[in-house]
This record gives sequence, C-alpha cells and structure tokens, in this order.
Amino acid sequence: MTPAPLHDPLPLAQALIRCASVTPADAGAQAVLAETLERLGFTVTRLRFGEIENLFARIGTAGPHLCFAGHTDVVPAGDAGWSAGPFDGTVRDGMLYGRGACDMKGAVAAFVAACAGHLADGPPRGSISLLITGDEEGVAIDGTARVLEWMAEAGQVPDFCVVGEPTNPARLGEMIKIGRRGSLNARIAVHGRQGHVAYPHRADNPVHRLVHVLSALTAAPLDAGSDWFEPSSLQVTSIDVGNPATNVIPAIARAALNIRFNDRHSGATLTAWLRAVLAQHAGQFELEVAVSGESFLTAPGPLLERLQAAVHGVTGLEPQLDTGGGTSDARFISRLCPVAEFGLVGSTMHQVDERVPVEDLRQLARVYRHLLDTVLT
Amino acid sequence: MTPAPLHDPLPLAQALIRCASVTPADAGAQAVLAETLERLGFTVTRLRFGEIENLFARIGTAGPHLCFAGHTDVVPAGDAGWSAGPFDGTVRDGMLYGRGACDMKGAVAAFVAACAGHLADGPPRGSISLLITGDEEGVAIDGTARVLEWMAEAGQVPDFCVVGEPTNPARLGEMIKIGRRGSLNARIAVHGRQGHVAYPHRADNPVHRLVHVLSALTAAPLDAGSDWFEPSSLQVTSIDVGNPATNVIPAIARAALNIRFNDRHSGATLTAWLRAVLAQHAGQFELEVAVSGESFLTAPGPLLERLQAAVHGVTGLEPQLDTGGGTSDARFISRLCPVAEFGLVGSTMHQVDERVPVEDLRQLARVYRHLLDTVLT
Repeated sequence: MTPAPLHDPLPLAQALIRCASVTPADAGAQAVLAETLERLGFTVTRLRFGEIENLFARIGTAGPHLCFAGHTDVVPAGDAGWSAGPFDGTVRDGMLYGRGACDMKGAVAAFVAACAGHLADGPPRGSISLLITGDEEGVAIDGTARVLEWMAEAGQVPDFCVVGEPTNPARLGEMIKIGRRGSLNARIAVHGRQGHVAYPHRADNPVHRLVHVLSALTAAPLDAGSDWFEPSSLQVTSIDVGNPATNVIPAIARAALNIRFNDRHSGATLTAWLRAVLAQHAGQFELEVAVSGESFLTAPGPLLERLQAAVHGVTGLEPQLDTGGGTSDARFISRLCPVAEFGLVGSTMHQVDERVPVEDLRQLARVYRHLLDTVLT
Repeated sequence: MTPAPLHDPLPLAQALIRCASVTPADAGAQAVLAETLERLGFTVTRLRFGEIENLFARIGTAGPHLCFAGHTDVVPAGDAGWSAGPFDGTVRDGMLYGRGACDMKGAVAAFVAACAGHLADGPPRGSISLLITGDEEGVAIDGTARVLEWMAEAGQVPDFCVVGEPTNPARLGEMIKIGRRGSLNARIAVHGRQGHVAYPHRADNPVHRLVHVLSALTAAPLDAGSDWFEPSSLQVTSIDVGNPATNVIPAIARAALNIRFNDRHSGATLTAWLRAVLAQHAGQFELEVAVSGESFLTAPGPLLERLQAAVHGVTGLEPQLDTGGGTSDARFISRLCPVAEFGLVGSTMHQVDERVPVEDLRQLARVYRHLLDTVLT
C-alpha cells in the first residue's frame, strides 16, 4: 500500500472503505489504521476481544488528554442498486461513495488527518488518543465497552472524548450531540382467573387489570423534558391475549412497552415506577425489564465550548446542541469521561449509495484540527 | 307402541328418551308426541322448516290461552361412561336415566300428563297449546323462532307461555326464570400510524388509543342492576396487536368484548354507546357488533302469580324469580307474549348420566296441572 499523504483525509478514507469490514468482519481495516497511526508516532495497542478487532492508540503522556472514538466496522451493503461499488472508494463529481463513507470511516480518516497536521509542528502539549472498535454496528459487546474497561484498568482516562458519528442532518456544522436518551424495554404479564363471561363474579379478568395498568402508565407524560432533553416517551408496542372465544374470560394478558427517557430518570427509577403501578392495579403480575442504555448528558463546559468554537470557526454555523435520536457508543464512554459527538452529514448512512462530499471530509478534518490546536496549547 | 297411561309422565318420558333425537335429528320423537296429543283431543300441526321437525298443538278456541314451549331435541350423549344407555330410558333406584331426562323430554312429558289430568274433567275453559321444536340445542334458526312467526301469522297468540327448561339449581320448586339478560359481542379495530419508538411524534400509537377506549368502557359499571336483574357486565375477552418488534409503534390494535345486559339496555343503545366512546378516544376505528339476544323480562302479574302459587302449592317452596344464566328460546317467545320458565332440576343436564328422580317428574306434572286448573277456570 502506498502511504497516504496525511494532511488530506481522502486517501485514508478510501483505503478504509476498500476493506469490506462488514460487522463483525475486520477485513484488514484495523491494520491499515494501526500502521498509519504508528507512522505518526502513536503507540498502538491492538485489542482483540472475542472475534472483534479493536485498537487504542495514544501519543503523549501529559494532560490534557483528548480522545477520539470511532469504529471501522460497517453495516452490510444491502440490496443491489449502488451506482458505485460499495467497497471501491470511488470519487465521482466531488463525492466519495462507499459503505462507511459517512458512518464512519470518513470521520476516522478526518481525525487522523487532523492529527497529522497538528503533529507536524512537534509533539503534542498533552495527549491525543483514539479508541477504534470493530463492533459498533453489531452487538456492541466486545467493542467499545470492553476497550473502555481496558482503558480504565490501564489508567487511560481522557479529559474529553469526541465521537465521530454522523450528527448533522443536512449540513456539516449544524449539530453536536451532547447526550442521548436512555432506552428500556419491559414485558408485563397480568394473571387472572379464567371463566365464562356470563358469570364474571366467578372469574377475574386480567385484561381489565392490564388496561388499568396501561391507562395509568400512559395517562400523563413522564416529564415535560429537561434543559437539554425532549420529554421522555413511553410507547406500548404490543398487547397480546390471544383468546379466540367470545364467551370466555382469559387467564392471562401480556403487554410490551418501550421507554425512551431523559436525564430525569434512570433504568432503576423507571423500573421501580413500573413495579409500583403494577402493584397498584395488576393483582398478580410478572415484570421483565431490559435497560439497553441509560441516558447521559455532557453539560456545557470549557472543552465542549472549544468543540463548538471549532465547528463555528471552520463552518461558520452555530451548531445546535442536541440529545435526540437513537443510542450510540457514547453511552458507554460517558461513564469514563465527558463525551460529545460530531461527525459528517448522516443523510445517506446505512443506505444504498452512502456517500459524502470530499469537501465535507476536508472540512471535518479542519474542525478536528481546530479542536486539537485549541485544547492542546 | 303401547299407548302410555296419560296421568303418569314416566312412560311418555321414556318413550321420548328412546328416540335418539340428537339435534338436528328427530328420530321419531315428534311423531310420538303428536300421536299422544291427538289422542287427548289436540289439533296438531306438524311444522317442518328446513330439516327441523316442529309442532304446534292446540285444544280449545277461547281465552285464556296458556302455551307450553319445549323441545324434543337433545345434545349428544358425549363420551362413554354412562351407567345406563343414554337412549334406553332406564329407571334405577327411583331415577330415570337418559339424554333429555331433565333437558327437557321429562318436562314435555310432565306437561302432557298435566293436560291429560286436566282434560279428564271435560274440554278446557279456554285453550291449551304446545310449541315443541326440534332445534333448541342447535342453531335455533328453524325452530322456535320460525314456529313463532307461523303462530303470529295464524293468530295463535297465547296469553302466557311456560317454557319447560330446567330452572332449578338443586331442588324442584326453587326457581322460576322470568327473564334473561341480553348478550352482545363487539370487535374493535383502532388504526394509527406505524413508526419508530424513538420518534413517537412521527407516529400515532393505536395501542394507546385502544387502551383509553377500553379504560373508558370499563371505568364504571354499566348500571347497578334493576328490579329483577343483576348489574350488566362488560368483559374485554381479548386484545391482539401481535407486534414482535420492541422498537416499532404498530399500525393497528384490535380488541373483542362481550356485554351481558339487563333490561336497562338494548343491543341498539349499547352499540350507540360503544360508537360514542370510540368516536371520543379512538381516532380512526372499525366496530363490528353482533347482538345474539336482547334482554327480556316478564314483570310480575296475575298469570305469573298463578305459576308461583302452583309451584308453592305442590312443592311447599317459595320459588325465587330469577333472570340469570345464559340464553334460552324464551327470548324469542317474549316478543309474542309474557313468558316464564319452570322445569326440572338442571344439575345433570348436558352431562354423562343425565337423570331425574321419577318423583320430580310427577311433582312437575302436578305443578303444571295446578297451573292449568287455576288459569283455565
């Protein structure tokens, strides 16, 4: 492989796209990145957990310690219909095509290019690190979560972390994510006593109890939102009784629900609330709860302000600080250090003909460079 | 066939049981009955509708006109385990065994025996009729309902009708039924807009709308009962969404419910109420209603009082006037004339070893005779 000129992110982005690293496969992507970082002076630790390739790279030993987090795995190319090969790294009319172009090999390449530019003037006044996983698009067990455990044990605790996920809906510079809602799934089973509808006093209808439970759970919003979050939302996704007999009161009724919750709640407080409402209305019940992610928030502070300033300085836009959307690996990182997310425009991510303007790649590299230059002074 | 001695109901009850008239089959039962009634002086009209044998018999032309309604069909004998052949008419230890012994060939025979006794003194001072169907245990389309149409057209409108269904829970004389609740089945479908649980503002959750509908429908009792009825009862029998995805708001939610209603409601008023609650809470919805029977009541009056007096005079018990239980052919008759139900003890009906004490048969014949003697004076 010809070494990529490091100030331009395009060649590295293309080299990464040409590795068909459909999760959980690595296809050489981590090696391409490790080699590039080593040439820049980083100490690279390859971390294989289970079948997942990850790496942690650091240059410098002093603080402040700025970390970039990202991933080299991608979702499958999907059905036919690409106008350029999904793993070719084609550039056409100023657009880089390929699976991972915006989510998020392009952002990884932009950060490496920013490092190359920053380090051209000499060693960093502080530390730069990269946490790069191969399991963000998969089950997310042997990726970021495991690397963070390793970092905590090794004393590698950054002062601030930037995740390179595509955060901008339409234009580079529009949006920084400073938190995410949590997500909880619950399954409820309410037990009653079967009987004939003509003799309801001899039965106990669990459907009525379940209706009262769900009515209580959905009667009022969970909250009116918080400083940085939209209101939390509870959605009953299914109710299933499956009783075909019109003259029979059934013995059991089940429901499933999902809660997307802000920083006014936690998985534990919501579980306690569900249990209390059930205890009040359900009679005999079972409750299963799975918290797939707690909410988190990085409150505005000096390092986040430097990221905002970098985005504004390069793009001219005032980025909106947002906490919407689904979950990301930032939920794990938030337990270790303050974290914000800023990357490319996500409008084509996970789609056929995923692509990014080459100029956006270079602008993103300038944003990251601006951040490095202002944090590590 | 040897002619049965007409003052004792047992031989006719046995002769009827020996016809295996499992609904819709007749197996000669209607002919046995017709012949017996003709010998007593009745004018018998055989009424075949579809594959169902029915008969209407009358003696006398003046009023008052007392009608007895019953059926000669029976439910199947069911699994093995009978201690006597279900169609043998065996008497053992004072009990008559056989399918139909209590429901209701025994009561038909008791009424015929009562007629024989009453008519032994000469022609009736008024009229006696019998409406006997072969379709009470079946779909009930070509039986009582059709005979009643025929009676209305022929000007055969009784002043009072006694149905010989088994009404007594444990002892002969305990209970007269003077009405029945109505029954209504409804199916509800509530439509919404599918979407991702993380973006509920872009979706419209039909499960929540359905929960609010069902909560409103079950929030309060339909009524507190009426003079002669228990409170009406609404039972949600099933809710079915069938959405396996925990992160998807479904597009449609369905429920089924049954209402057993007293004389403060009708199928039409309840349907209007369901539609109004749906219109208030459901958004876009579909409602299907099937009324399988309206409620009816025969308010206490002189003829019912004579039935009460007959029961008390013969059995020494004060019969309870009841409106509970399921539906019977009385719901059809109530449209033509006042109707009450009094028959044998029903504890073995539809079961293996259906049986009735021979003494109960004779007591029931005495009750019916008492009624005839006091009404037709």
